[in-house]
Amino acid sequence: MTDRPLPASLPETERTRHRRLRDQGSLERARLDEILDAGFLCHLGVVVDGAPMVVPTVYGSDGRTLYVHGSVASRSLAAAPGTPVCVTVTHLDGLVLARSVFEHGVNYRSAMIHGVPRPVTDPEEKQAGLRRLTEQAAPGQWDYARRPSRKELAATALLALSLEEASVKIRTGAPDDGDGPDAALGLWAGVLPLTAAWGAPEADPLLPDGVTPPPHIAARAHTRAG
Amino acid sequence: MTDRPLPASLPETERTRHRRLRDQGSLERARLDEILDAGFLCHLGVVVDGAPMVVPTVYGSDGRTLYVHGSVASRSLAAAPGTPVCVTVTHLDGLVLARSVFEHGVNYRSAMIHGVPRPVTDPEEKQAGLRRLTEQAAPGQWDYARRPSRKELAATALLALSLEEASVKIRTGAPDDGDGPDAALGLWAGVLPLTAAWGAPEADPLLPDGVTPPPHIAARAHTRAG
Repeated sequence: MTDRPLPASLPETERTRHRRLRDQGSLERARLDEILDAGFLCHLGVVVDGAPMVVPTVYGSDGRTLYVHGSVASRSLAAAPGTPVCVTVTHLDGLVLARSVFEHGVNYRSAMIHGVPRPVTDPEEKQAGLRRLTEQAAPGQWDYARRPSRKELAATALLALSLEEASVKIRTGAPDDGDGPDAALGLWAGVLPLTAAWGAPEADPLLPDGVTPPPHIAARAHTRAG
Repeated sequence: MTDRPLPASLPETERTRHRRLRDQGSLERARLDEILDAGFLCHLGVVVDGAPMVVPTVYGSDGRTLYVHGSVASRSLAAAPGTPVCVTVTHLDGLVLARSVFEHGVNYRSAMIHGVPRPVTDPEEKQAGLRRLTEQAAPGQWDYARRPSRKELAATALLALSLEEASVKIRTGAPDDGDGPDAALGLWAGVLPLTAAWGAPEADPLLPDGVTPPPHIAARAHTRAG
Protein backbone atom coordinates (compact mmCIF):
# COMPACT_ATOMS: atom_id res chain seq x y z
CA MET A 1 0.00 0.00 0.00
CA THR A 2 3.02 2.34 0.05
CA ASP A 3 3.97 4.35 -3.00
CA ARG A 4 7.63 3.34 -2.93
CA PRO A 5 8.28 1.98 -6.42
CA LEU A 6 9.30 -1.64 -6.74
CA PRO A 7 12.87 -2.11 -7.99
CA ALA A 8 13.27 -2.39 -11.78
CA SER A 9 15.11 -5.67 -11.31
CA LEU A 10 13.46 -8.70 -9.82
CA PRO A 11 15.46 -10.08 -6.89
CA GLU A 12 17.29 -13.37 -7.39
CA THR A 13 16.15 -15.72 -4.66
CA GLU A 14 16.63 -19.41 -4.14
CA ARG A 15 13.30 -19.88 -5.90
CA THR A 16 13.63 -17.42 -8.76
CA ARG A 17 17.25 -18.00 -9.75
CA HIS A 18 17.28 -19.39 -13.27
CA ARG A 19 19.14 -22.70 -13.17
CA ARG A 20 18.80 -23.75 -16.76
CA LEU A 21 17.92 -22.24 -20.11
CA ARG A 22 19.35 -19.10 -18.56
CA ASP A 23 18.94 -17.18 -21.77
CA GLN A 24 15.19 -17.57 -21.40
CA GLY A 25 15.15 -16.07 -17.93
CA SER A 26 14.64 -12.38 -17.32
CA LEU A 27 14.99 -10.35 -14.16
CA GLU A 28 13.40 -7.22 -15.60
CA ARG A 29 10.30 -6.12 -13.78
CA ALA A 30 9.02 -4.52 -17.00
CA ARG A 31 8.83 -7.99 -18.59
CA LEU A 32 6.85 -9.27 -15.59
CA ASP A 33 4.39 -6.40 -15.92
CA GLU A 34 3.96 -7.00 -19.65
CA ILE A 35 3.20 -10.68 -19.12
CA LEU A 36 0.71 -9.97 -16.34
CA ASP A 37 -0.97 -7.15 -18.27
CA ALA A 38 -1.41 -9.37 -21.35
CA GLY A 39 -3.70 -11.85 -19.59
CA PHE A 40 -6.16 -12.49 -16.82
CA LEU A 41 -6.03 -16.28 -16.33
CA CYS A 42 -3.51 -17.74 -13.93
CA HIS A 43 -2.79 -21.09 -12.33
CA LEU A 44 -2.72 -20.86 -8.56
CA GLY A 45 -0.69 -23.50 -6.75
CA VAL A 46 -1.29 -24.29 -3.10
CA VAL A 47 -0.26 -27.12 -0.82
CA VAL A 48 -3.19 -29.05 0.67
CA ASP A 49 -2.40 -31.92 3.05
CA GLY A 50 1.15 -32.02 1.74
CA ALA A 51 0.11 -32.35 -1.91
CA PRO A 52 0.03 -29.62 -4.52
CA MET A 53 -3.20 -28.36 -6.05
CA VAL A 54 -3.12 -26.23 -9.20
CA VAL A 55 -6.32 -24.28 -9.77
CA PRO A 56 -7.11 -22.05 -12.75
CA THR A 57 -8.52 -18.69 -11.70
CA VAL A 58 -8.57 -15.04 -12.75
CA TYR A 59 -6.36 -12.23 -11.53
CA GLY A 60 -5.79 -8.53 -11.81
CA SER A 61 -2.46 -6.78 -11.35
CA ASP A 62 -1.66 -3.21 -10.43
CA GLY A 63 2.08 -3.78 -10.85
CA ARG A 64 2.63 -4.06 -7.12
CA THR A 65 -0.04 -6.50 -5.99
CA LEU A 66 -1.65 -9.41 -7.76
CA TYR A 67 -5.32 -9.85 -6.86
CA VAL A 68 -6.44 -13.44 -7.29
CA HIS A 69 -10.08 -14.49 -7.32
CA GLY A 70 -11.59 -17.46 -5.54
CA SER A 71 -14.57 -18.60 -3.58
CA VAL A 72 -14.75 -18.54 0.19
CA ALA A 73 -15.79 -22.17 -0.01
CA SER A 74 -12.91 -23.16 -2.22
CA ARG A 75 -10.68 -25.67 -0.56
CA SER A 76 -7.52 -24.27 -2.06
CA LEU A 77 -8.11 -20.70 -0.98
CA ALA A 78 -9.29 -21.74 2.44
CA ALA A 79 -5.92 -23.40 2.82
CA ALA A 80 -3.96 -20.53 1.37
CA PRO A 81 -4.00 -17.67 3.90
CA GLY A 82 -0.70 -17.71 5.74
CA THR A 83 0.65 -20.51 3.59
CA PRO A 84 2.83 -20.02 0.52
CA VAL A 85 1.37 -20.05 -2.97
CA CYS A 86 2.77 -19.92 -6.46
CA VAL A 87 0.85 -18.14 -9.20
CA THR A 88 1.88 -18.81 -12.77
CA VAL A 89 0.73 -16.95 -15.88
CA THR A 90 1.66 -18.42 -19.25
CA HIS A 91 1.10 -17.16 -22.78
CA LEU A 92 1.76 -19.74 -25.47
CA ASP A 93 3.01 -18.02 -28.63
CA GLY A 94 3.89 -20.85 -30.96
CA LEU A 95 5.46 -24.19 -31.67
CA VAL A 96 9.19 -24.29 -32.36
CA LEU A 97 9.60 -26.88 -35.09
CA ALA A 98 13.27 -27.78 -35.28
CA ARG A 99 15.17 -30.20 -37.49
CA SER A 100 15.42 -32.66 -34.60
CA VAL A 101 12.68 -33.73 -32.22
CA PHE A 102 15.07 -32.97 -29.36
CA GLU A 103 15.19 -29.27 -30.25
CA HIS A 104 11.42 -28.93 -30.55
CA GLY A 105 9.84 -26.60 -28.07
CA VAL A 106 7.43 -23.75 -27.60
CA ASN A 107 7.66 -19.99 -27.77
CA TYR A 108 6.08 -18.58 -24.65
CA ARG A 109 6.03 -15.88 -22.03
CA SER A 110 5.65 -17.01 -18.46
CA ALA A 111 5.70 -15.41 -15.04
CA MET A 112 5.84 -17.26 -11.75
CA ILE A 113 5.06 -15.36 -8.57
CA HIS A 114 5.91 -16.71 -5.13
CA GLY A 115 4.67 -15.50 -1.80
CA VAL A 116 2.30 -15.76 1.09
CA PRO A 117 -1.01 -14.22 0.03
CA ARG A 118 -3.08 -11.97 2.19
CA PRO A 119 -6.86 -12.45 2.19
CA VAL A 120 -8.41 -9.10 1.34
CA THR A 121 -10.98 -8.23 3.99
CA ASP A 122 -11.18 -4.44 3.90
CA PRO A 123 -14.31 -3.69 1.78
CA GLU A 124 -12.64 -0.73 0.09
CA GLU A 125 -9.57 -2.72 -0.95
CA LYS A 126 -11.78 -5.63 -1.96
CA GLN A 127 -13.80 -3.34 -4.19
CA ALA A 128 -10.63 -1.88 -5.71
CA GLY A 129 -9.08 -5.31 -6.21
CA LEU A 130 -12.23 -6.68 -7.84
CA ARG A 131 -12.38 -3.65 -10.07
CA ARG A 132 -8.80 -4.28 -11.17
CA LEU A 133 -9.56 -7.92 -11.82
CA THR A 134 -12.78 -7.19 -13.71
CA GLU A 135 -11.23 -4.45 -15.83
CA GLN A 136 -8.24 -6.63 -16.68
CA ALA A 137 -10.48 -9.38 -18.08
CA ALA A 138 -13.30 -7.23 -19.39
CA PRO A 139 -12.32 -3.58 -19.77
CA GLY A 140 -15.31 -1.29 -19.44
CA GLN A 141 -17.53 -3.74 -17.59
CA TRP A 142 -16.95 -2.31 -14.11
CA ASP A 143 -18.70 0.87 -15.19
CA TYR A 144 -21.26 -0.85 -17.44
CA ALA A 145 -22.51 -3.75 -15.33
CA ARG A 146 -24.09 -3.60 -11.88
CA ARG A 147 -21.34 -3.37 -9.28
CA PRO A 148 -21.14 -5.81 -6.38
CA SER A 149 -23.50 -5.26 -3.47
CA ARG A 150 -22.20 -5.40 0.07
CA LYS A 151 -23.48 -8.96 0.33
CA GLU A 152 -21.84 -9.99 -2.93
CA LEU A 153 -18.57 -8.40 -1.86
CA ALA A 154 -18.68 -10.40 1.35
CA ALA A 155 -19.31 -13.58 -0.64
CA THR A 156 -16.28 -12.99 -2.84
CA ALA A 157 -12.88 -14.24 -1.77
CA LEU A 158 -9.95 -12.21 -2.94
CA LEU A 159 -6.29 -12.88 -2.25
CA ALA A 160 -3.58 -10.23 -2.50
CA LEU A 161 -0.11 -11.40 -3.41
CA SER A 162 2.87 -9.05 -3.44
CA LEU A 163 4.75 -8.93 -6.75
CA GLU A 164 8.10 -8.81 -4.97
CA GLU A 165 9.36 -12.33 -5.66
CA ALA A 166 8.83 -13.39 -9.23
CA SER A 167 10.53 -15.18 -12.04
CA VAL A 168 10.07 -14.57 -15.75
CA LYS A 169 10.85 -16.82 -18.69
CA ILE A 170 10.45 -15.91 -22.33
CA ARG A 171 11.33 -17.79 -25.49
CA THR A 172 10.94 -16.19 -28.89
CA GLY A 173 12.19 -16.82 -32.40
CA ALA A 174 13.43 -19.62 -34.58
CA PRO A 175 14.68 -23.08 -33.61
CA ASP A 176 18.24 -23.36 -32.28
CA ASP A 177 19.57 -26.00 -34.63
CA GLY A 178 19.83 -23.91 -37.78
CA ASP A 179 23.61 -23.72 -37.51
CA GLY A 180 24.22 -27.24 -36.24
CA PRO A 181 24.84 -30.53 -38.05
CA ASP A 182 21.08 -31.16 -38.42
CA ALA A 183 20.84 -28.19 -40.83
CA ALA A 184 22.29 -30.53 -43.46
CA LEU A 185 19.18 -32.73 -43.25
CA GLY A 186 17.43 -30.29 -45.57
CA LEU A 187 14.26 -30.33 -43.48
CA TRP A 188 11.95 -27.36 -43.12
CA ALA A 189 12.23 -25.70 -39.73
CA GLY A 190 10.60 -22.70 -38.20
CA VAL A 191 7.80 -21.57 -35.97
CA LEU A 192 4.07 -22.20 -36.14
CA PRO A 193 2.66 -19.15 -34.36
CA LEU A 194 -0.33 -19.42 -32.08
CA THR A 195 -2.65 -16.49 -31.48
CA ALA A 196 -5.67 -16.14 -29.26
CA ALA A 197 -8.36 -13.79 -30.52
CA TRP A 198 -11.78 -12.62 -29.39
CA GLY A 199 -14.73 -13.61 -31.54
CA ALA A 200 -17.98 -11.78 -32.16
CA PRO A 201 -20.09 -11.23 -29.02
CA GLU A 202 -22.77 -13.90 -28.54
CA ALA A 203 -25.91 -12.46 -26.97
CA ASP A 204 -27.58 -14.18 -24.03
CA PRO A 205 -30.65 -15.94 -25.56
CA LEU A 206 -32.74 -14.45 -22.75
CA LEU A 207 -31.91 -10.91 -23.88
CA PRO A 208 -34.86 -8.94 -25.28
CA ASP A 209 -34.66 -7.99 -28.96
CA GLY A 210 -32.83 -4.80 -29.76
CA VAL A 211 -30.29 -4.84 -26.94
CA THR A 212 -26.94 -4.55 -28.70
CA PRO A 213 -23.44 -4.96 -27.25
CA PRO A 214 -22.00 -1.70 -25.91
CA PRO A 215 -19.03 -0.26 -27.86
CA HIS A 216 -16.41 -1.45 -25.35
CA ILE A 217 -17.49 -5.05 -26.01
CA ALA A 218 -18.25 -4.78 -29.73
CA ALA A 219 -14.86 -3.15 -30.37
CA ARG A 220 -13.06 -6.15 -28.92
CA ALA A 221 -14.36 -8.62 -31.49
CA HIS A 222 -11.64 -9.97 -33.76
CA THR A 223 -8.84 -8.38 -31.76
CA ARG A 224 -5.92 -10.28 -30.35
CA ALA A 225 -6.03 -11.56 -26.79
CA GLY A 226 -2.80 -12.04 -24.82
CA MET B 1 0.95 -50.93 -18.93
CA THR B 2 -2.00 -53.32 -18.66
CA ASP B 3 -4.81 -53.28 -21.17
CA ARG B 4 -7.58 -53.25 -18.59
CA PRO B 5 -9.69 -50.22 -19.59
CA LEU B 6 -10.01 -47.41 -17.11
CA PRO B 7 -13.52 -46.96 -15.71
CA ALA B 8 -15.79 -44.60 -17.65
CA SER B 9 -16.46 -42.67 -14.47
CA LEU B 10 -13.71 -40.82 -12.65
CA PRO B 11 -13.55 -41.85 -8.98
CA GLU B 12 -14.70 -39.35 -6.39
CA THR B 13 -11.85 -38.88 -3.95
CA GLU B 14 -11.25 -36.37 -1.20
CA ARG B 15 -9.34 -34.33 -3.77
CA THR B 16 -11.60 -34.65 -6.78
CA ARG B 17 -15.01 -34.30 -5.14
CA HIS B 18 -16.60 -31.13 -6.46
CA ARG B 19 -17.41 -28.97 -3.48
CA ARG B 20 -18.84 -25.97 -5.23
CA LEU B 21 -20.21 -25.00 -8.61
CA ARG B 22 -21.18 -28.66 -8.75
CA ASP B 23 -22.91 -28.22 -12.08
CA GLN B 24 -19.54 -27.39 -13.61
CA GLY B 25 -17.94 -30.60 -12.38
CA SER B 26 -17.93 -33.77 -14.44
CA LEU B 27 -16.95 -37.30 -13.52
CA GLU B 28 -17.01 -38.59 -17.09
CA ARG B 29 -13.70 -39.92 -18.27
CA ALA B 30 -14.65 -39.03 -21.85
CA ARG B 31 -14.67 -35.33 -20.86
CA LEU B 32 -11.20 -35.72 -19.33
CA ASP B 33 -9.88 -37.30 -22.53
CA GLU B 34 -11.40 -34.55 -24.68
CA ILE B 35 -9.77 -31.83 -22.60
CA LEU B 36 -6.38 -33.54 -22.62
CA ASP B 37 -6.56 -34.28 -26.35
CA ALA B 38 -7.39 -30.66 -27.15
CA GLY B 39 -4.09 -29.29 -25.85
CA PHE B 40 -0.47 -29.95 -25.06
CA LEU B 41 0.41 -27.29 -22.47
CA CYS B 42 -0.12 -28.05 -18.80
CA HIS B 43 0.78 -26.50 -15.48
CA LEU B 44 2.69 -28.92 -13.28
CA GLY B 45 2.48 -28.29 -9.55
CA VAL B 46 5.05 -29.72 -7.17
CA VAL B 47 5.95 -29.03 -3.57
CA VAL B 48 9.53 -27.83 -3.06
CA ASP B 49 10.70 -27.14 0.49
CA GLY B 50 7.08 -26.98 1.63
CA ALA B 51 6.08 -24.37 -0.95
CA PRO B 52 4.23 -24.96 -4.20
CA MET B 53 5.85 -24.41 -7.58
CA VAL B 54 3.71 -24.24 -10.71
CA VAL B 55 5.66 -24.82 -13.90
CA PRO B 56 4.32 -24.67 -17.45
CA THR B 57 5.38 -27.64 -19.53
CA VAL B 58 4.16 -29.88 -22.34
CA TYR B 59 2.44 -33.23 -22.09
CA GLY B 60 1.11 -36.08 -24.15
CA SER B 61 -1.74 -38.38 -23.14
CA ASP B 62 -2.62 -41.88 -24.25
CA GLY B 63 -5.81 -41.90 -22.20
CA ARG B 64 -4.24 -43.98 -19.46
CA THR B 65 -0.97 -42.22 -18.74
CA LEU B 66 0.00 -38.57 -18.95
CA TYR B 67 3.59 -38.06 -20.09
CA VAL B 68 4.99 -34.77 -18.83
CA HIS B 69 8.16 -33.25 -20.17
CA GLY B 70 10.92 -31.67 -18.10
CA SER B 71 14.65 -31.32 -17.82
CA VAL B 72 16.77 -33.57 -15.64
CA ALA B 73 18.24 -30.41 -14.20
CA SER B 74 14.89 -28.87 -13.45
CA ARG B 75 14.42 -28.29 -9.78
CA SER B 76 10.74 -29.12 -9.85
CA LEU B 77 11.10 -32.45 -11.58
CA ALA B 78 14.11 -33.42 -9.50
CA ALA B 79 11.84 -32.95 -6.51
CA ALA B 80 8.90 -34.76 -8.05
CA PRO B 81 9.73 -38.49 -8.19
CA GLY B 82 7.98 -40.17 -5.29
CA THR B 83 6.25 -36.98 -4.27
CA PRO B 84 2.73 -35.99 -5.28
CA VAL B 85 2.09 -33.64 -8.17
CA CYS B 86 -0.93 -31.95 -9.64
CA VAL B 87 -1.13 -31.36 -13.37
CA THR B 88 -3.75 -28.93 -14.63
CA VAL B 89 -4.79 -28.34 -18.23
CA THR B 90 -7.07 -25.38 -18.94
CA HIS B 91 -8.70 -24.19 -22.13
CA LEU B 92 -10.18 -20.70 -21.91
CA ASP B 93 -13.20 -20.44 -24.20
CA GLY B 94 -14.61 -17.02 -23.48
CA LEU B 95 -15.65 -14.28 -21.12
CA VAL B 96 -19.07 -14.52 -19.52
CA LEU B 97 -20.36 -10.96 -19.44
CA ALA B 98 -23.32 -10.87 -17.08
CA ARG B 99 -25.60 -8.02 -16.00
CA SER B 100 -23.81 -7.86 -12.65
CA VAL B 101 -20.08 -7.88 -12.02
CA PHE B 102 -20.68 -10.62 -9.46
CA GLU B 103 -21.98 -13.03 -12.12
CA HIS B 104 -19.08 -12.39 -14.48
CA GLY B 105 -16.91 -15.37 -15.19
CA VAL B 106 -15.22 -17.40 -17.86
CA ASN B 107 -16.22 -20.30 -20.05
CA TYR B 108 -13.53 -22.92 -19.80
CA ARG B 109 -12.64 -26.60 -19.83
CA SER B 110 -10.21 -27.71 -17.17
CA ALA B 111 -8.75 -30.99 -16.00
CA MET B 112 -6.79 -31.52 -12.82
CA ILE B 113 -4.82 -34.73 -12.41
CA HIS B 114 -3.45 -35.86 -9.06
CA GLY B 115 -0.90 -38.51 -8.40
CA VAL B 116 2.65 -39.56 -7.73
CA PRO B 117 4.52 -39.52 -11.03
CA ARG B 118 6.96 -42.15 -12.11
CA PRO B 119 10.14 -41.03 -13.83
CA VAL B 120 10.34 -42.87 -17.14
CA THR B 121 13.71 -44.61 -17.40
CA ASP B 122 13.11 -47.49 -19.80
CA PRO B 123 14.42 -46.26 -23.18
CA GLU B 124 11.58 -47.90 -25.09
CA GLU B 125 8.87 -46.33 -22.93
CA LYS B 126 10.71 -43.02 -23.00
CA GLN B 127 10.76 -43.11 -26.78
CA ALA B 128 7.06 -43.97 -26.90
CA GLY B 129 6.17 -41.27 -24.37
CA LEU B 130 8.18 -38.64 -26.22
CA ARG B 131 6.53 -39.67 -29.45
CA ARG B 132 3.10 -39.23 -27.86
CA LEU B 133 4.10 -35.84 -26.50
CA THR B 134 5.62 -34.69 -29.80
CA GLU B 135 2.69 -35.88 -31.87
CA GLN B 136 0.19 -34.25 -29.54
CA ALA B 137 1.82 -30.83 -29.96
CA ALA B 138 3.05 -31.19 -33.51
CA PRO B 139 1.33 -34.03 -35.38
CA GLY B 140 3.53 -35.43 -38.11
CA GLN B 141 6.82 -34.19 -36.69
CA TRP B 142 7.91 -37.48 -35.12
CA ASP B 143 8.17 -39.00 -38.57
CA TYR B 144 9.42 -35.83 -40.29
CA ALA B 145 12.14 -34.56 -37.96
CA ARG B 146 15.24 -36.41 -36.77
CA ARG B 147 14.29 -38.64 -33.86
CA PRO B 148 16.13 -38.47 -30.54
CA SER B 149 19.52 -40.17 -30.34
CA ARG B 150 20.35 -42.40 -27.40
CA LYS B 151 22.24 -39.49 -25.83
CA GLU B 152 19.35 -37.10 -26.35
CA LEU B 153 16.90 -39.59 -24.89
CA ALA B 154 19.09 -39.89 -21.81
CA ALA B 155 19.18 -36.10 -21.49
CA THR B 156 15.38 -35.85 -21.59
CA ALA B 157 13.39 -36.17 -18.40
CA LEU B 158 9.94 -37.62 -18.75
CA LEU B 159 7.42 -38.20 -16.02
CA ALA B 160 4.54 -40.66 -16.28
CA LEU B 161 1.40 -39.87 -14.33
CA SER B 162 -1.53 -42.28 -14.15
CA LEU B 163 -4.86 -40.78 -15.24
CA GLU B 164 -6.71 -42.58 -12.46
CA GLU B 165 -7.42 -39.64 -10.14
CA ALA B 166 -8.67 -36.61 -11.98
CA SER B 167 -11.21 -33.87 -11.73
CA VAL B 168 -12.90 -32.08 -14.62
CA LYS B 169 -14.65 -28.74 -14.69
CA ILE B 170 -16.42 -27.24 -17.66
CA ARG B 171 -18.46 -24.08 -18.03
CA THR B 172 -20.26 -23.25 -21.24
CA GLY B 173 -23.02 -20.95 -22.34
CA ALA B 174 -24.67 -17.70 -21.38
CA PRO B 175 -24.52 -15.79 -18.08
CA ASP B 176 -26.70 -17.05 -15.24
CA ASP B 177 -28.53 -13.85 -14.40
CA GLY B 178 -30.82 -13.71 -17.44
CA ASP B 179 -33.86 -14.73 -15.40
CA GLY B 180 -32.97 -12.84 -12.22
CA PRO B 181 -33.85 -9.32 -11.07
CA ASP B 182 -30.81 -7.88 -12.90
CA ALA B 183 -32.44 -8.74 -16.24
CA ALA B 184 -34.60 -5.64 -15.71
CA LEU B 185 -31.51 -3.42 -15.91
CA GLY B 186 -31.72 -3.63 -19.70
CA LEU B 187 -28.01 -4.23 -20.08
CA TRP B 188 -26.47 -6.32 -22.82
CA ALA B 189 -25.22 -9.66 -21.59
CA GLY B 190 -23.64 -12.61 -23.28
CA VAL B 191 -20.36 -14.26 -24.06
CA LEU B 192 -17.25 -12.94 -25.75
CA PRO B 193 -15.74 -16.11 -27.21
CA LEU B 194 -12.01 -16.66 -27.24
CA THR B 195 -10.34 -18.87 -29.82
CA ALA B 196 -6.73 -19.86 -30.28
CA ALA B 197 -5.63 -20.44 -33.86
CA TRP B 198 -2.43 -21.36 -35.65
CA GLY B 199 -0.94 -18.76 -37.95
CA ALA B 200 1.07 -19.20 -41.13
CA PRO B 201 4.36 -21.07 -40.63
CA GLU B 202 7.35 -18.75 -40.18
CA ALA B 203 10.49 -20.19 -41.74
CA ASP B 204 13.76 -20.26 -39.80
CA PRO B 205 15.83 -17.39 -41.32
CA LEU B 206 18.74 -19.83 -41.58
CA LEU B 207 16.78 -22.09 -43.92
CA PRO B 208 18.11 -22.24 -47.50
CA ASP B 209 15.85 -20.87 -50.22
CA GLY B 210 13.27 -23.25 -51.62
CA VAL B 211 12.66 -25.37 -48.51
CA THR B 212 8.92 -25.18 -47.99
CA PRO B 213 6.85 -26.40 -45.03
CA PRO B 214 5.74 -30.02 -45.36
CA PRO B 215 1.98 -30.58 -45.84
CA HIS B 216 1.37 -31.61 -42.22
CA ILE B 217 2.62 -28.21 -41.08
CA ALA B 218 1.22 -26.08 -43.91
CA ALA B 219 -2.24 -27.62 -43.47
CA ARG B 220 -2.38 -26.49 -39.88
CA ALA B 221 -2.19 -22.77 -40.66
CA HIS B 222 -5.38 -20.89 -39.82
CA THR B 223 -6.94 -23.86 -38.05
CA ARG B 224 -8.24 -23.77 -34.55
CA ALA B 225 -6.00 -24.84 -31.67
CA GLY B 226 -7.52 -26.25 -28.50
